[in-house]
Amino acid sequence: MRLIGIDPGLRRTGFGVIEIISRQKAVYLGSGVIRPPTDRPEPERLGLLYAGMQSVLSQYEPTAAVVEQVFVNINPRSTLSLGQARGVAIAALAAAGLPVSELSALKIKQSIVGTGRATKDQVSHMVCRLLALQQAPSADAADALACALAFWHAQRP
Amino acid sequence: MRLIGIDPGLRRTGFGVIEIISRQKAVYLGSGVIRPPTDRPEPERLGLLYAGMQSVLSQYEPTAAVVEQVFVNINPRSTLSLGQARGVAIAALAAAGLPVSELSALKIKQSIVGTGRATKDQVSHMVCRLLALQQAPSADAADALACALAFWHAQRP
Repeated sequence: MRLIGIDPGLRRTGFGVIEIISRQKAVYLGSGVIRPPTDRPEPERLGLLYAGMQSVLSQYEPTAAVVEQVFVNINPRSTLSLGQARGVAIAALAAAGLPVSELSALKIKQSIVGTGRATKDQVSHMVCRLLALQQAPSADAADALACALAFWHAQRP
Repeated sequence: MRLIGIDPGLRRTGFGVIEIISRQKAVYLGSGVIRPPTDRPEPERLGLLYAGMQSVLSQYEPTAAVVEQVFVNINPRSTLSLGQARGVAIAALAAAGLPVSELSALKIKQSIVGTGRATKDQVSHMVCRLLALQQAPSADAADALACALAFWHAQRP
């Protein structure tokens, strides 16, 4: 299984791809952040997010996807805007034929760090350890990798 | 200008296409509702909404789009879900190279019926009159046509 984790957002959508080698072993394939230019109108940014997702999917050819569930208890306009970006990312995954799962930020942190109160630095640190990365990816890419790793952990028998 | 109006939603996304012939005259080209099957998982429904939008766009080849602005003062989960569907519809329009505008439901009703408190029946009735339709389209399609007509009215010098 080649798993892509997604941390969606209009400004920055993080992605991280891992290959599951065995019950104990996952290998880092790549990660990054899709950043549609902020000086364009929002509809165009959503279109560019879709195109960016397509490009990542054709580069890494994952076979399954997991998307971070968002915290919706923010103001309605932000929730709507985040929902829009999230919908675009999910549609791109589904259009590529991938099964799409979801995981809450709480469960991801619990799985990766052992506590739902983990800081971003702790998540990033553990992602680097679990995947033997020499250099920490950016925060959004680390969150996406954490999402993929947590999903894999939850799936293991 | 060939204008497509969109009333987005996960269960039903209404669309309506009009051709602007002159300052006074717009002609009905088509309308309908995209309904991704409700028995599929939400990610798949979002993917099918994107595909449905692509199909409508290739059928009618509009040159500009206007999307109804949604009322966000509902519960956060509904706002997120509506945002997801809305983002997918907008991304499909932007990916097709269309300029995408937005209009609030209030402005649409004011423009078409003369009052922001207009009922759905009143909107549908006026859409039929303005476009000389023999038969009323479904409510979501009528809202999408109203959106396109209101945008055209607002653009006229």
